[in-house]
Amino acid sequence: MQEYNAPIEDILFVINNLTSTIENNNEEYSDVELMKQIFEEAGKFATNILAPLNSLGDKEGISLENGLVRMPNGFVDAYNQYIKGGWASVAGSKEYGGQEMPWKIVGGLNEVWHAANMSFSLNMLLTQGAIEVIEAYGTKEQKQKYLPKMISGEWSGTMNLTEPQAGSDLSLLKTKAIPHNEFYKIYGNKIYITHGDQDMTENIIHLVLARLPDAPEGSKGISLFISPKNMISKDGKILEKNDVRVVSIEHKLGTIASPTCVLAFGDNEGSISELIAHENGGLKAMFTMMNNARLNVGIQGVSIAERAYQQALNFSLTRLQGNSIDNATEGTVAIIDHPDVQRMLMDMKSRTEAMRALSLYTASELDLTKRASSEKIKKKAQENLDILTPIVKTWCTDQGVLIASTGVQVHGGMGFIEETGAAQYYRDARILPIYEGTNGIQALDLLRRKLTMDDGNVFKRFLNEMKNDAEICIAIKDGELPYIGNKVIKAINILEETADELLSMWKHNKRQAASGATPFIDMCGSIFGGWMMAKSALKASQLLKNNKKDKFLISKISTSLFYIDTVLESALSLKNVVINAHKNVDSILFNIEN
Amino acid sequence: MQEYNAPIEDILFVINNLTSTIENNNEEYSDVELMKQIFEEAGKFATNILAPLNSLGDKEGISLENGLVRMPNGFVDAYNQYIKGGWASVAGSKEYGGQEMPWKIVGGLNEVWHAANMSFSLNMLLTQGAIEVIEAYGTKEQKQKYLPKMISGEWSGTMNLTEPQAGSDLSLLKTKAIPHNEFYKIYGNKIYITHGDQDMTENIIHLVLARLPDAPEGSKGISLFISPKNMISKDGKILEKNDVRVVSIEHKLGTIASPTCVLAFGDNEGSISELIAHENGGLKAMFTMMNNARLNVGIQGVSIAERAYQQALNFSLTRLQGNSIDNATEGTVAIIDHPDVQRMLMDMKSRTEAMRALSLYTASELDLTKRASSEKIKKKAQENLDILTPIVKTWCTDQGVLIASTGVQVHGGMGFIEETGAAQYYRDARILPIYEGTNGIQALDLLRRKLTMDDGNVFKRFLNEMKNDAEICIAIKDGELPYIGNKVIKAINILEETADELLSMWKHNKRQAASGATPFIDMCGSIFGGWMMAKSALKASQLLKNNKKDKFLISKISTSLFYIDTVLESALSLKNVVINAHKNVDSILFNIEN
Repeated sequence: MQEYNAPIEDILFVINNLTSTIENNNEEYSDVELMKQIFEEAGKFATNILAPLNSLGDKEGISLENGLVRMPNGFVDAYNQYIKGGWASVAGSKEYGGQEMPWKIVGGLNEVWHAANMSFSLNMLLTQGAIEVIEAYGTKEQKQKYLPKMISGEWSGTMNLTEPQAGSDLSLLKTKAIPHNEFYKIYGNKIYITHGDQDMTENIIHLVLARLPDAPEGSKGISLFISPKNMISKDGKILEKNDVRVVSIEHKLGTIASPTCVLAFGDNEGSISELIAHENGGLKAMFTMMNNARLNVGIQGVSIAERAYQQALNFSLTRLQGNSIDNATEGTVAIIDHPDVQRMLMDMKSRTEAMRALSLYTASELDLTKRASSEKIKKKAQENLDILTPIVKTWCTDQGVLIASTGVQVHGGMGFIEETGAAQYYRDARILPIYEGTNGIQALDLLRRKLTMDDGNVFKRFLNEMKNDAEICIAIKDGELPYIGNKVIKAINILEETADELLSMWKHNKRQAASGATPFIDMCGSIFGGWMMAKSALKASQLLKNNKKDKFLISKISTSLFYIDTVLESALSLKNVVINAHKNVDSILFNIEN
Repeated sequence: MQEYNAPIEDILFVINNLTSTIENNNEEYSDVELMKQIFEEAGKFATNILAPLNSLGDKEGISLENGLVRMPNGFVDAYNQYIKGGWASVAGSKEYGGQEMPWKIVGGLNEVWHAANMSFSLNMLLTQGAIEVIEAYGTKEQKQKYLPKMISGEWSGTMNLTEPQAGSDLSLLKTKAIPHNEFYKIYGNKIYITHGDQDMTENIIHLVLARLPDAPEGSKGISLFISPKNMISKDGKILEKNDVRVVSIEHKLGTIASPTCVLAFGDNEGSISELIAHENGGLKAMFTMMNNARLNVGIQGVSIAERAYQQALNFSLTRLQGNSIDNATEGTVAIIDHPDVQRMLMDMKSRTEAMRALSLYTASELDLTKRASSEKIKKKAQENLDILTPIVKTWCTDQGVLIASTGVQVHGGMGFIEETGAAQYYRDARILPIYEGTNGIQALDLLRRKLTMDDGNVFKRFLNEMKNDAEICIAIKDGELPYIGNKVIKAINILEETADELLSMWKHNKRQAASGATPFIDMCGSIFGGWMMAKSALKASQLLKNNKKDKFLISKISTSLFYIDTVLESALSLKNVVINAHKNVDSILFNIEN
């Protein structure tokens, strides 16, 4: 019941047809057969090794023994195979042993890993982020010291931001860094450190935000440090333990097999650390990395949605209950015969496909920012990425929670029993709208930093390009494409009006506008998803000309239509919600004030 | 952080102003001061005794020792106090020692109990249901034998419907009942038996669905039996154990302290039981009871929403993080200052108040069906109840899940840590859309049995009465009342068009119509809730004339406006979703077929 098969056909459909490509088309990994091989190998590893450990890890959990975290049975072996397969190094730069695959492929692989086993794969997500920071901000010595082992997967990485009083608001953090010879000594406690300790790698490279003596107050006085779990000699050998202690591991709602640690730096002599990036430039360096992490968390939303969908679909095919509503079939039927079960499954499927397309499209824009040949293209891709990142993070994770909940519902009473597996996805999904910046913060980021770019013209330019795609659907006059195209244009027009009003509100009253930020980003997600489904239907319809019976392509058009008729449609009435949410919102304070 | 205070002011506002009353107004419990006293006493018991055990029970869980279920520490004591306080007997008939309070009061009390401790209070919910069945279908001897002890709370009751192959589809059940002297012997396994065993009462009265020898196949051959855990002598003494065994207790996502049992009847000599209601009349008897249980499950949705809201509100007042968006306050602020947090809290509050009003209004219609002086009024009340019950069950439980999820989100990272408490509500809430008939089955019930009553005219009559209330808001021309009234009328008109189209679709193609059943019931819930918020604003505005500074009443108008501008608004675009959901829904089968 809990098996998982990577949705390779859809991932490749998206990568090959819906993502941006480098203009001169000389990408190393653009070969369709090679990509297929990569994903087939990944799919095997996910199905055979990672996926079976998912519920085992959830049941067994992790333990803290003599100050060290012990991962659930099977995780260390799986990790060794993960390294052996070369999967740890797909994103890293070639200079330090990586394969430098484009992010649209890495994103597709990340979807597969997190769907198979989110608790396991969080280790890799954090390590990827730490590698990026060191690649972008490290000195040559730091890169040579840390990157080869991190890219190979021998060492992992963590992000140490949060303190009890400093969560979303990092300006409040208190951890200290005191200069000590050519190093620094760090003193302070960090919480919510994902894979803050584990026994799968021989070292863990902690990236830690802390304040130097006499640093300015607030967010301008924060620096970033590298603080390894075990000290490292100049020639890369592991030396004695650094002064970092696992105080406790959190008892969480989900991702139970992912150790979320409280770490104490500098209980004794101080944790020996190196400065990375400029003094007081820590937040900027961390946020550069966090943007990519946000995209990857959005992809986790796709993962949990796909896993929940597969589980619900399998259940609905085998669970016999009730009679066919139109007596089309005699006797007791599998519940997939019931229209409401079909509706739930199509709802899950169509949302998941839209999320996958939007998130991998976003990953391809990230690739353009790094690899495009002209600065002009890079700049435009960066603008697109700026707009898309908070939307993918927020929308795909909110949808992940919703879809996991629908997955439980499809199972009826069995969905509430932990053994079935659907409940785990419902629990695991719930962290996604919270970490790497809560969805409320993403919504505000979209409003205050992205919608306002060039007085709203960057956002408008993006919407116009979406409309162009929809107009192609209309012009082609093939089957249901004009219907889809018209619906999408109507939705984009409403979104544009909403954006205009919201931006104008923002100029006059930030507080009022901010009340509409969440319904606005939700509206963006559903409509951007609709645009992706229109593009999907268009491509499918073109490809069908050469292969008229291809089931995947025929289904893709139906799924697009279902999305357009339901999810997209539901978003249309959000305009007034965005505009009017502020009107009585502060009455929540009225009863509380004395 | 995890304290709970019963929302007495709002419960009384609803009961006193928004519910139906017996026309001659001679209700025994209509005295406002008496009701206030009842709810204040209930509130104390909930806050001081039940609420603190809620997270303790969740952490400790239950155990199965020597074939008997042991409840978490403190539950047995709390249960004894619950009986002593007379709370067990509020609904039972006076003839057997009950207090015969109207259901609108019992419903309000049930909200409080389930908010304080859902796992504990599930015992009472099931016992109330079993009492109703015996009151309605028992012989005089059965009533005298069982009701006094059950109404006092000394004995509890359970419902034994589900078997592994027979969940939503009870026609598939296989448990056998063999005549034996004046009794029957029952043989078979039942699953998902809520409070199927516990150590709080000296006996447990199991109501069991089973088949007599030679009974017709399917749902027409099911009879209902009373099968006590411990045998009872003619004069009411407890005798030896009956042949009922606890096979196991389920490991569940939520309501961890509520024992969900697998029970084996008749492992040995057969479980001695009495027939209740006619032979083969078991399903009808059980469904009579289930209708009230459905209303009570809807109320559980209100409970979990209120509890999640209170927890989130308290957290938002004390958690300091970030600066005021418009710099209205200097320095770090409590997160309730942030517009998006205010929006989340108002969203939770306004939905919860609409749910409370709709569910207690429904309970008052149930009272009319039993207590009204004329058959005409009883008949109309029954029609209203028929329409409202599936809507309350579905909408309030779906909202309960949504609101509990928003509650986690307000907490940020701490929401994902079990210690905080918000996660428990998210877990507990998830059973509500599933049990007592999944929400998909409720949606189909509304479509096939309720919307079709008198060819749609009963539903239309109900909508017209809703419109009348909205027109009063418009006519009064006071403050924002006309705005609210117009919005509600617009929504009801769209709902009426949707209902017309759906009913017409049902006549021509049941399968197509059934695909829209869930978005339709969701639309009904949001719009019926809007009607209740319009009535709330109207009453609050009238009452304010005598008490212009009443904070509760001023807030009520703001909350109503917020609901109208956001929740009601979002429902408007569901019309096309209802009508179009069927179009591609069966394409889910396409990829699967070979």
